[in-house]
Amino acid sequence: MKPVCLVIGAGAGIGGTVAAKFASEGYHSVLCRRSDRDGLDKLVGDIKADGGDASGFLLNAVDDGVIEQQIAYVENEIGPIEVALFNLGAQIGNRTLEDTSLKTFELGWRMATLALFRLAKELFPRMQERGGGTCLVTSATAAMRGNAGQHSHAAAMAGRRMLCQSLNAEYAGKGIHVAHILIDGAVDAPDTLGKMLGKDAFQELREQRGLEHDGLMLPLKIAETYYHIAQQHRSAWTHELDLRAFSDLAWWNH
Amino acid sequence: MKPVCLVIGAGAGIGGTVAAKFASEGYHSVLCRRSDRDGLDKLVGDIKADGGDASGFLLNAVDDGVIEQQIAYVENEIGPIEVALFNLGAQIGNRTLEDTSLKTFELGWRMATLALFRLAKELFPRMQERGGGTCLVTSATAAMRGNAGQHSHAAAMAGRRMLCQSLNAEYAGKGIHVAHILIDGAVDAPDTLGKMLGKDAFQELREQRGLEHDGLMLPLKIAETYYHIAQQHRSAWTHELDLRAFSDLAWWNH
Amino acid sequence: MKPVCLVIGAGAGIGGTVAAKFASEGYHSVLCRRSDRDGLDKLVGDIKADGGDASGFLLNAVDDGVIEQQIAYVENEIGPIEVALFNLGAQIGNRTLEDTSLKTFELGWRMATLALFRLAKELFPRMQERGGGTCLVTSATAAMRGNAGQHSHAAAMAGRRMLCQSLNAEYAGKGIHVAHILIDGAVDAPDTLGKMLGKDAFQELREQRGLEHDGLMLPLKIAETYYHIAQQHRSAWTHELDLRAFSDLAWWNH
Amino acid sequence: MKPVCLVIGAGAGIGGTVAAKFASEGYHSVLCRRSDRDGLDKLVGDIKADGGDASGFLLNAVDDGVIEQQIAYVENEIGPIEVALFNLGAQIGNRTLEDTSLKTFELGWRMATLALFRLAKELFPRMQERGGGTCLVTSATAAMRGNAGQHSHAAAMAGRRMLCQSLNAEYAGKGIHVAHILIDGAVDAPDTLGKMLGKDAFQELREQRGLEHDGLMLPLKIAETYYHIAQQHRSAWTHELDLRAFSDLAWWNH
Repeated sequence: MKPVCLVIGAGAGIGGTVAAKFASEGYHSVLCRRSDRDGLDKLVGDIKADGGDASGFLLNAVDDGVIEQQIAYVENEIGPIEVALFNLGAQIGNRTLEDTSLKTFELGWRMATLALFRLAKELFPRMQERGGGTCLVTSATAAMRGNAGQHSHAAAMAGRRMLCQSLNAEYAGKGIHVAHILIDGAVDAPDTLGKMLGKDAFQELREQRGLEHDGLMLPLKIAETYYHIAQQHRSAWTHELDLRAFSDLAWWNH
Repeated sequence: MKPVCLVIGAGAGIGGTVAAKFASEGYHSVLCRRSDRDGLDKLVGDIKADGGDASGFLLNAVDDGVIEQQIAYVENEIGPIEVALFNLGAQIGNRTLEDTSLKTFELGWRMATLALFRLAKELFPRMQERGGGTCLVTSATAAMRGNAGQHSHAAAMAGRRMLCQSLNAEYAGKGIHVAHILIDGAVDAPDTLGKMLGKDAFQELREQRGLEHDGLMLPLKIAETYYHIAQQHRSAWTHELDLRAFSDLAWWNH
Repeated sequence: MKPVCLVIGAGAGIGGTVAAKFASEGYHSVLCRRSDRDGLDKLVGDIKADGGDASGFLLNAVDDGVIEQQIAYVENEIGPIEVALFNLGAQIGNRTLEDTSLKTFELGWRMATLALFRLAKELFPRMQERGGGTCLVTSATAAMRGNAGQHSHAAAMAGRRMLCQSLNAEYAGKGIHVAHILIDGAVDAPDTLGKMLGKDAFQELREQRGLEHDGLMLPLKIAETYYHIAQQHRSAWTHELDLRAFSDLAWWNH
Repeated sequence: MKPVCLVIGAGAGIGGTVAAKFASEGYHSVLCRRSDRDGLDKLVGDIKADGGDASGFLLNAVDDGVIEQQIAYVENEIGPIEVALFNLGAQIGNRTLEDTSLKTFELGWRMATLALFRLAKELFPRMQERGGGTCLVTSATAAMRGNAGQHSHAAAMAGRRMLCQSLNAEYAGKGIHVAHILIDGAVDAPDTLGKMLGKDAFQELREQRGLEHDGLMLPLKIAETYYHIAQQHRSAWTHELDLRAFSDLAWWNH
């Protein structure tokens, strides 16, 4: 039986691409996303066409019990989850304090912070019983510093980062590796950045920064590092790292 | 009419002592806390006995609309809030992931992060209209790093810190000064540390560290710095500072 | 006998103004700077005209033995140094790697890092014998993050910050308080920023940001916080704080 | 012609092992260390015995001109340096301020900070002309926080880190990738930790933490991540990452 890689937040950017990478390396990848059945089917289909194993699920991770049920289902029906990728974004663009409603602020936290806590509560005891596991957590610049318009996003992502540190402090010694991966730049991801900007502005950005090799971070290349981190020997684990395009400045410089 | 200093979280430690300090300097201090009418009355009575102005309210800041209503009430009935001290703690002692319920995790966030967001949403537009104001935010070591047993506390306090940064990024230029004050040590505070440890263990700690001048952080001395920060000229504002006892190590050393 | 406040780097900006503040509060301020006898005499004369005590010395702090001899001289001839302000800057403007010579890089370190180490080595044992003392250290944004053109400045200032942390870790428990004060913005300081920009550009900046109350950080206001930090009770010491103008963004936002 | 990997600080721990890893992947590894001709010959010989290409040099990197000459020699005689590993340590064990001489403090800086600056000045313009290159920099916990006894080490390592950030800010956009790799724990390295602790204490530590798979960080495993970082595509570069053993706490937790 193949080891399982569970991806929460499997769009056509980082999530789906990391899922494909793990599948190509011998994992059964389980792709979960909130919407777009066609997009999901395409990702799963492409993995299978390449000879990999994958399953796809539409689910709303912030709904009560959904993450927990999905983990139980996967563990019972597909196999033990060896790697989990928590890839839910909570970026809503820049909004002033006035334009950030309580509901928006709460939803940001439910997606970015609470959902990871719930995943860990359900999954880590299972991993611990098996002697270990890996949890890759995609994070954002906002985890490192607040900024105008980022009231919701920064508070939620900072909670995510500190939760990763707390989880490592409790679970690393028990064999569970949590990696906080800071995506410090714009990703060539049609399902998130593309939708936020709109089709035309996204295409303009891609052309301006270079479609192939340049300023936008390429999910295929990002996935290489995600995979490497998950394969690190336990004598040399990375807890925190950043990733950015060569042509971009680090967050501390702009 | 005196300027108003609103204190959310006015126990017998930092909150009540800062309230008394501002009252002694000419502010009308409004003390708000969740419980203990007698303790509240004593704090207010002591301020008045010293010739200061103060009012006291029992309220649960995490209940819907309560902070918002209290701000509106104070502004209408007592006077414009020039300084707000957000002093709600969310420390629940060390709890493993398993022992941290979803309810506990959410409550931590409601107290430590969301309540500050709600206060800012209600108060900052009023302050902005008047040309400025000050918001002092008490924070904790957990805002800087996660640790075993701190899943709830660290995630919530990190959210608080990044929210402070976001608020400054939007509002400092409009005259509103937000200061994130990191209390990096044990405070001689009977209402919080005292209750968490229990009466005997707290007394033992006080005796061990020195009741008067030593290892526990003294609220009267802490209040001096809170007051200073609120009086800084706008050409030289502090956004972040730490406070600890001389005999303690900084968080980055233990 | 008055307590002594020793200022290393006493120009007409932060250094001289903090010296005047301490003199006005009852200290004998000892002003040390590298050059400009007239400027030094004016600072000392102004303090005396206001009824304060002050002495002035021209010295090159990076020369072998000079800081050490000056500390010995002051302690023997004027009085015990209760507060030291280490205020040497090492900003040389932005220079590419190619344009930063080994000599420049070394000089930056000698001024920003080594000189503080030498001051501490000479002064802290004396302070420790007397039961304590305070060392205020002016620092810069470059201590927190490197940036293009800041090869020398950032490396030197980061060394300064970590040295402050190491000094506190060894000496705080012995009663010596080291405060790392991050000046995160442009100071209205004719002797440093003024000389770096040139007279006309400096005046233009002052006019653009507002001569009196606005975007440039005013040394008189900065000095209030320096003095406050030096007066903190040992149960509530600040090790690190930042200062910036209300109209400026924090370093983590630009 | 094989691409060259230049290692400054090639002991039997991280430096020599990374050199062997790159040689096994098709690089010509150039191992430079200060002393121990036999140890050096063994490292080079082992690489060759495994079918790799390597050269070994004894040199003192802190001596004037030595790094510069070595880079020129390698580029002229062996080939263009595609990857440089800067692996000089500057740990001298814990020393009080009193026991840290000016000479020791300066030597720490010459090894940890200045030598990297010199390497970059000599090498980066050559790399830039060729369109890019990689500089891996081994760093230590002391780069992140000062501590008692770490006056020299922390100041020097913090300078190293900020220099890395400054180099990236100037050179990343020109195709040169600098990675600051924080080794946050004890490495199974006989040439550094082994010599610092002495043979018996080192063996005791190895036995206590587990010789093979446990608490000490294994250079062979560390080298995997060094190699991965050097292979990252320029659309997804890591500037900073940490590495520690699963059984160790992160620096922010102790």
